[in-house]
Amino acid sequence: MRKVMLTDTTLRDGSHSVSHQYSLEDMKKIAMALDEAGIDLIEIGHGDGLNGQSLNYGFAAHTDLEYVKAVAGVLKNAKLTVLLVPGIGLIEDLEAVREAGVKAVRVATHVTEADVAEQHIKAAKKMGLFTVGFLMMSHMASKEIILQEAQKMESYGADVVYVTDSAGAMLPDEVFEKVAYLKSHLKVPVGHHSHNNLGLAVANSVKAYEAGADYLDGSLIGLGAGAGNCPTEALVAVLERLDIPKNVDLYSIIDAGDKVLIPILEAHQKPLPRMNSDSLIIGYAGVYSSFMLHARNAANRFGVDARDVLIELGKKKAVGGQEDWIIEVAHQLANK
Amino acid sequence: MRKVMLTDTTLRDGSHSVSHQYSLEDMKKIAMALDEAGIDLIEIGHGDGLNGQSLNYGFAAHTDLEYVKAVAGVLKNAKLTVLLVPGIGLIEDLEAVREAGVKAVRVATHVTEADVAEQHIKAAKKMGLFTVGFLMMSHMASKEIILQEAQKMESYGADVVYVTDSAGAMLPDEVFEKVAYLKSHLKVPVGHHSHNNLGLAVANSVKAYEAGADYLDGSLIGLGAGAGNCPTEALVAVLERLDIPKNVDLYSIIDAGDKVLIPILEAHQKPLPRMNSDSLIIGYAGVYSSFMLHARNAANRFGVDARDVLIELGKKKAVGGQEDWIIEVAHQLANK
Repeated sequence: MRKVMLTDTTLRDGSHSVSHQYSLEDMKKIAMALDEAGIDLIEIGHGDGLNGQSLNYGFAAHTDLEYVKAVAGVLKNAKLTVLLVPGIGLIEDLEAVREAGVKAVRVATHVTEADVAEQHIKAAKKMGLFTVGFLMMSHMASKEIILQEAQKMESYGADVVYVTDSAGAMLPDEVFEKVAYLKSHLKVPVGHHSHNNLGLAVANSVKAYEAGADYLDGSLIGLGAGAGNCPTEALVAVLERLDIPKNVDLYSIIDAGDKVLIPILEAHQKPLPRMNSDSLIIGYAGVYSSFMLHARNAANRFGVDARDVLIELGKKKAVGGQEDWIIEVAHQLANK
Repeated sequence: MRKVMLTDTTLRDGSHSVSHQYSLEDMKKIAMALDEAGIDLIEIGHGDGLNGQSLNYGFAAHTDLEYVKAVAGVLKNAKLTVLLVPGIGLIEDLEAVREAGVKAVRVATHVTEADVAEQHIKAAKKMGLFTVGFLMMSHMASKEIILQEAQKMESYGADVVYVTDSAGAMLPDEVFEKVAYLKSHLKVPVGHHSHNNLGLAVANSVKAYEAGADYLDGSLIGLGAGAGNCPTEALVAVLERLDIPKNVDLYSIIDAGDKVLIPILEAHQKPLPRMNSDSLIIGYAGVYSSFMLHARNAANRFGVDARDVLIELGKKKAVGGQEDWIIEVAHQLANK
C-alpha cells in the first residue's frame, strides 16, 4: 500500500484554542515533539494564516516571522509550512518566512474561487516552496466544480490540491466521491483536511485515503477552532490498524499530545477541545463557525431559533463576509 | 428507507461518568428529556447492569429498582430497558424491575459465550419483555463465530441481536461485514452498539445501518466509560443529513444534552467525556478499559510500556477476569 503523508496543524489551526497566545518556547517544544514523532509537514503561525493577526482575527503573542525563526532551526526532518489566504496574507509575508526557513505553503481559497490564488501559487513556486492548493468549504460544491477549481490550482503550479472540509460538514461517502473524482482527473496528488463537527473526522480521513488521497491532516488531541480537527493520534492509530504506511510513530505522537501539548494548554488555562452543540450545528448546517455569534444575535432580535438561521444560511451556501445576510435570514424566518 | 430505532444509554453506560451517583430526580429529568425527544428505548440502571452495584463495580446512589420506580411513570412513549449480565444480574432482579415498569432487557454476554444467556433470555421472554441479545467485545470474533452465537440467542427467543463493540475497537468495514453477515443469516433484526475510542463511533453506527442494522445506540454528549459511547446528538444529525428515518428530533436531543444533562454533570462536579490517550490505546489494543490500571501497575513493576502490555493482551484476546494474565504478559515482555 502507498504511504500517506501527514500534516499536523496543532501550531496553526490549534492556535485558535490558545487565543493565538503560544509562546516561542511553546511552539518550539511542540514542533520538536511533532518532528520526532515523524510528522511530515508542520503547519505554524496565526490560526487565520500569514498576516492573520489583526483586530478582526485576534492578535497573536508573536508574529508569524518570530514563530518561524524560533522553530525552523530545531526541526530535523519535518518541513515547516504556513497557510496563506490571499487577501489576508501577502506575497511579501511569504517571502519573509521563506527566508526564515519555511519550506512549504498552503494557499487557501473558498472552493469556488481558486482564481484568487493564481499569483500566490505562482510566486510560491518561484520561491522554490512546496505549494499546496487548499480548497476550503469543499462541502459546498459539486465534484465537477471542485475539479474545475483544482485544475486551476494545478495549472498555476500547485504540487498538491486539497479537498478541505472547513466546517466539518462532509459525510464519508461524499469525501470518497469528491477525492476519488479529483484523483482520477488531476496529475498532482490530492489531500484531505477534516474537522470533527459531526464526529466523522477520523472516518472521513480514512475514506479520503481509500479514495486516493496521499496527504491527510490532523492536530494533537484534535486541537483547533470549534470541534477541532481530526485528532492526529487517533488517525495514526487507525492507519496503523489498517496497515497503511506512514512516517509517524504511534506512541511518540500520543506522547506529544499527552506530555507536551496538554501541559502547555494547562499552563495557559485553556480547556481541552471537545464536540459541543454549537460545533455540531455548524457541521450539520455547513457554515463557518464565525456565523454562530451573529446568528444568535439575529435570532434573539427576531425571536427565532439560531439553529434555523444557520441551517437556512447553509442551504443558501453563505460564505464569510456575508454576515449582513444573517440578519435578513432571521427576519425572513420570523415572517414565516 | 427503513426506520432506525435508537436506544440511549445515558442513564446506564453513562452512569459510570457520575460514579453511579445519579439522584432519582436526575434520572427522571434526563429520562423525560430523552422521551420527549423521541428516543425509542431508554436504558437505565447501574453501569454494569442489574445488580451491578457491588464492592467490585462501585456502589450506586440508588438501587436499580429505585431508579426504575422513579422513571417508569414519567415516560410517554419510550420503552424502559435494563442491561442484564448473566452472572452479575439474576432473573429475580429482572422480575422485580419488570413489575416496576421495565418493558425491555438487553442480555449481555461475551461474544463467544451466548450459552450463558439461555435461561435469562427465555425467562425474559416468558415475562413478556422485549428481549435483546447483546454480544459484547464483538471485535474479538470472526463473523462466522458471531453468527453462531447470535443464532443461539435467536433460538432462545431474542427479538434482536446486537454486534456490540465494547472496546471501541472496530473499524468501519469490519462493522459492515459483521452486521451484514448477521443480517443475511438471522430472522430477527440486528443492532450495533459502538464506543468512541478510535473516534469512529458515529461512522461505525452509520455503517451498521447501511449493512442492515435496525437498532443503534448512543448516549447524550457520548457520556460513558472511557472515551464514551456514540454521541446520540451527532448520530441523529448524521442520520438526518442522510435522510434515514428515525423517531428522534434533532433539536430536542441536542437540548436534552445541553439543558438537562450538562447542568446535572456540573452539579455533580463531573468532567464532560472526551477521548484521551488511555481510551485510544484501549480501542487500538481491543481490550477492556478495566485492564488499564492493572497494565500500568504490571508495567511499572517490570519496567515495560503499559501500552505494549495492553496490545499484547489484545492479541491474546484476553477477556475480563483474566487480570492475573496481565502480570504474566508484562513479565514476558520484560524478558524479551
